Amino acid sequence: MVERSPLAPKGFPRMPPVAGVRLASTEAGIRYQGRSDLLLVELAPGSAVAGVFTRSSTASAPVEWSRRVVRGGQVRAILVNSGNANAFTGRAGHKTVARTAEATAYLLGCPRREVLVASTGVIGEPLEAEKTLQALPNLGGRLMPRGWPAAARAIMTTDTFPKGATRGARIARQRVVINGIAKGSGMIAPDMATMLAFIFTDARLPAPVLRTLLRRATRRSFNAITVDSDTSTSDTCLLVATGQTSVRPRVASAGDRRLDDFRYALEELMTDLAQQIVRDGEGAQKFVTITVSGARSEDAARRIGLSIGNSPLVKTAIAGEDPNWGRIVMAVGKSGEAADRDGLEIRIGGHLVASEGDVDPNYDEAAVARHMKGRAIAIEVDVAVGRGRATVWTCDLTRGYIEINADYRS
Amino acid sequence: MVERSPLAPKGFPRMPPVAGVRLASTEAGIRYQGRSDLLLVELAPGSAVAGVFTRSSTASAPVEWSRRVVRGGQVRAILVNSGNANAFTGRAGHKTVARTAEATAYLLGCPRREVLVASTGVIGEPLEAEKTLQALPNLGGRLMPRGWPAAARAIMTTDTFPKGATRGARIARQRVVINGIAKGSGMIAPDMATMLAFIFTDARLPAPVLRTLLRRATRRSFNAITVDSDTSTSDTCLLVATGQTSVRPRVASAGDRRLDDFRYALEELMTDLAQQIVRDGEGAQKFVTITVSGARSEDAARRIGLSIGNSPLVKTAIAGEDPNWGRIVMAVGKSGEAADRDGLEIRIGGHLVASEGDVDPNYDEAAVARHMKGRAIAIEVDVAVGRGRATVWTCDLTRGYIEINADYRS
Repeated sequence: MVERSPLAPKGFPRMPPVAGVRLASTEAGIRYQGRSDLLLVELAPGSAVAGVFTRSSTASAPVEWSRRVVRGGQVRAILVNSGNANAFTGRAGHKTVARTAEATAYLLGCPRREVLVASTGVIGEPLEAEKTLQALPNLGGRLMPRGWPAAARAIMTTDTFPKGATRGARIARQRVVINGIAKGSGMIAPDMATMLAFIFTDARLPAPVLRTLLRRATRRSFNAITVDSDTSTSDTCLLVATGQTSVRPRVASAGDRRLDDFRYALEELMTDLAQQIVRDGEGAQKFVTITVSGARSEDAARRIGLSIGNSPLVKTAIAGEDPNWGRIVMAVGKSGEAADRDGLEIRIGGHLVASEGDVDPNYDEAAVARHMKGRAIAIEVDVAVGRGRATVWTCDLTRGYIEINADYRS
Repeated sequence: MVERSPLAPKGFPRMPPVAGVRLASTEAGIRYQGRSDLLLVELAPGSAVAGVFTRSSTASAPVEWSRRVVRGGQVRAILVNSGNANAFTGRAGHKTVARTAEATAYLLGCPRREVLVASTGVIGEPLEAEKTLQALPNLGGRLMPRGWPAAARAIMTTDTFPKGATRGARIARQRVVINGIAKGSGMIAPDMATMLAFIFTDARLPAPVLRTLLRRATRRSFNAITVDSDTSTSDTCLLVATGQTSVRPRVASAGDRRLDDFRYALEELMTDLAQQIVRDGEGAQKFVTITVSGARSEDAARRIGLSIGNSPLVKTAIAGEDPNWGRIVMAVGKSGEAADRDGLEIRIGGHLVASEGDVDPNYDEAAVARHMKGRAIAIEVDVAVGRGRATVWTCDLTRGYIEINADYRS
């Protein structure tokens, strides 16, 4: 067992129940013995869903299935296993998804086109349906409105801690809850959802509204993190609204002002989960926040930030506690986005390091060196061509990453 | 001193003189003491030049200077230092380039707009002109048609061996020589020339012809390798033709059939140098050849190959001698290029591993495991959507890479 990441939060948050959501998890023995690896989420009738998925052209069988379900907008159950991603498993992989979805539908008395399936773990090894089918009836008997930490643990692979977050929000005058769990620590890269994230609210919001809210918040949360620039075949992020707390009159548009607080809380919760994934980055010893300003647009700023956050040379320098801003300049240069080399400004830990295309005359190397020894590293870059601004999060690249990935078969 | 890469060639090739090219190198003490770090190349009057440079938006001062020189097409000297890249050094950096180019021009009696300058090493630290200016007169007195190994050594930074290659070719009935030297082992990524490469031929070829020949060959050589996906601010690849061996009538077009043999030899030489750079990849223990076929185009195939070659998860799997083809599937999927997941074919070491979107029923895991233990790893992927084909080269990602880059300040 790998040790808990040094960047992990103190503990798992206290998460209240979400009306209309019931959970159960178990050890189905899908790949490893003695660890929980199967999660069933039951959702109240009338629950709406939106999802974002990996853009990989070699997406897994569960991703293809769930994409279709999400298109319908209605959901009654989510079945998740860890240990095997059921990716690149040919026709047999699709059959396994269909059989397990069908069994879940039978168990809960709902149509199978309202059962979402997600898998994470090794790629390219067949996932037999049998172990899941055997475990299902027992799961069905144990569904409860609590059990969030256990649910978060059941979806882990190389994660060293379970990831959860909760927020309250008001829609009109109605108080609603948002809970989320996520997993991921390797094969984490932007331009997609992250590995797996499931977010639930008791608010009543139709699927098209959820879709817009989810896409927007994903851009600034899961799509703004990177551990190793590798995009998974299984990335799935779902947002479910059970509608057990209704708002009257109903909200019909994501732009509705009454959603302002909810939108904010959702983005905050998703950013929290995304940052937890970075904090569990394989081998990570430092949590790095990169803020880019002065870019042509927010998207351009994010791409520059990710170019820095994906650079092995920047990440190894951080691992070595070296304030090597020359490598940051390099990473800005290779991003493909506009930047004014001679107007560039770089701050590390709040200290001005470089300005006007040169090292700053007042650069305080000792102060920056002290900052580099900490767990939380802050890099700010202004590229001096516009007003676009974005923040991305990443971790350092250490011997630990190599050790984990030269041994573990994902 | 780091040990010589286990992937290094047996020794430095025997390189004949190239008529019109004279070399001298020395220890100027630019950053380190006791190692050669300054190279002067004198070229006969009438030498033509073409160049490709980094596409970084934070390119170094020498790159900006040399870009202008190359536009003129005429060259009389190349001055190269290692230890300091003179990148992101503001106005002072440009002044240093101008002063050293001027001194070189004075020394050799040529216009300064025919002096190319290249620098490689640490980014963001001022490069003083003085040490170079002091060393120049002595260099001028020692110019010789031999000294290729010393020249290749003078341009090294974290390289563990000097890189050279030579080929003969015929243009019409005239025999010509092509010699090249290169350096690079980290901050190596495609979509550019490599770190530094200088190629010389005694053929008489005008600059526009050289330009076309160089661009084409770069695509399949230096732009088809990757060590760590990081693009340098200093990448420079120059092709010089001294014209000391003339072909009559003169060749005026890169498409001229009489250039077929030369074109082939040039591409071979550049591929040789490019592969040597990969063989000296920081921390590299294995040399990896990735051939992609069945893509929409040659460029698409190269991008898929580089997506595989840049994937930290693929590279760490190779370091761990794990034939983890699931990660290859992942890297194909994230490339952004068309691929038919259910028609995908993967071979490792010539053995069929996956076909038709699934593990191959006759997959011989023991044979593939044996192959993975070797120094040379061959990965073949057919993505089943077209006829585009390309080969790229990379190395594995090891603890050594982290060790080198968490300590060395580049």
